[in-house]
Amino acid sequence: MSRPIDPYHPTPNPLLVVISGPSGVGKDVTLGRMKELGYPFHFVVTTTDRAPRPGEVDGADYIFVSSAEFERLIEQDELIEHAVVYGQHKGVSKAQVRQALESGQDVVMRLDVQGAATIRQLVPDAVLIFLSTESEEALTARLRARRTESEEALRTRLANAREEMKRLDEFDYVVINRTGQLDETVETIAAIIRAESCRVRQREINL
Amino acid sequence: MSRPIDPYHPTPNPLLVVISGPSGVGKDVTLGRMKELGYPFHFVVTTTDRAPRPGEVDGADYIFVSSAEFERLIEQDELIEHAVVYGQHKGVSKAQVRQALESGQDVVMRLDVQGAATIRQLVPDAVLIFLSTESEEALTARLRARRTESEEALRTRLANAREEMKRLDEFDYVVINRTGQLDETVETIAAIIRAESCRVRQREINL
Repeated sequence: MSRPIDPYHPTPNPLLVVISGPSGVGKDVTLGRMKELGYPFHFVVTTTDRAPRPGEVDGADYIFVSSAEFERLIEQDELIEHAVVYGQHKGVSKAQVRQALESGQDVVMRLDVQGAATIRQLVPDAVLIFLSTESEEALTARLRARRTESEEALRTRLANAREEMKRLDEFDYVVINRTGQLDETVETIAAIIRAESCRVRQREINL
Repeated sequence: MSRPIDPYHPTPNPLLVVISGPSGVGKDVTLGRMKELGYPFHFVVTTTDRAPRPGEVDGADYIFVSSAEFERLIEQDELIEHAVVYGQHKGVSKAQVRQALESGQDVVMRLDVQGAATIRQLVPDAVLIFLSTESEEALTARLRARRTESEEALRTRLANAREEMKRLDEFDYVVINRTGQLDETVETIAAIIRAESCRVRQREINL
């Protein structure tokens, strides 16, 4: 945080921005819309050892690696964060993030609430954004609309969401992703990134 | 900074935003454009004891008061900040700012660099924005374009600007007001205000 700043050319450090929040708040949809609108950020592609589903593109939807390669990435501390999700590994490659930051790009990634807390430990100057909904009813409705889960799975997700909502104070910003107002959500996130780039005390990302 | 935050309704505290920077960076023009574009902020009207010039509207351009009334405001500590400019008093009424904040509006005001430093002491949670230009040449050109000053007065202003640029680290944000890019400047300031309203740790303004 100590780099002296030139008042005429305050070149901003690239940011590491984490979009997080409970299941159902709309993390993927929000990031998808940001990509669609062409924001000049590097959107992290998650690395996984599961097999590609029909239509999924390596390097775009996921970076697909073998389980052995994933193990190597873990062992060599080459992942910022990783988790086992339904028996399959998912993680974020340090090399990918480092490369984007070095090219001067702001890096945007999505993580669950636990993952965001992990990032805070590893990279204290990451910008952590907590995505929420306008009400628990809205959250329930969105989870229900997925129609991919049993009532029991849904109840579990809602119970988790309640616990995760309590961790809001570990985050820098909270953005309400209102039903039907996706572009407002995206604009608010863009405003946060724009504002952070103007901070006199720049964040320093070391990976 | 301790109010617990509701993840579904994170009602933001209204902000006190100070636009500052050396003479010639474009503080007035920037604020004028923000008003023109209809941003929903309360723009502080400066109180002065000088006489209105032809065309100036009381309550819009300035709040005009007698010298006796101005003295009373100083004595009763009813001004956030005041200064003597060319033998005339200028200041910002606490009552005006308090009233706007109480109505929930974000308050935006312009101050010189010394005034901004005073505000930081009085209201630590104020948002201080340092307006700059893209180069010292641009600053010189703008001061010259005013054509209201002698070469000597201009040299004094430039010397002051150099000193004031050194105080950048007393501010929260730096925004470059590029020549011919006024709307970009205004959008960046609006982004800062939008982002600050989403902070989990809300600023607390006590006057």
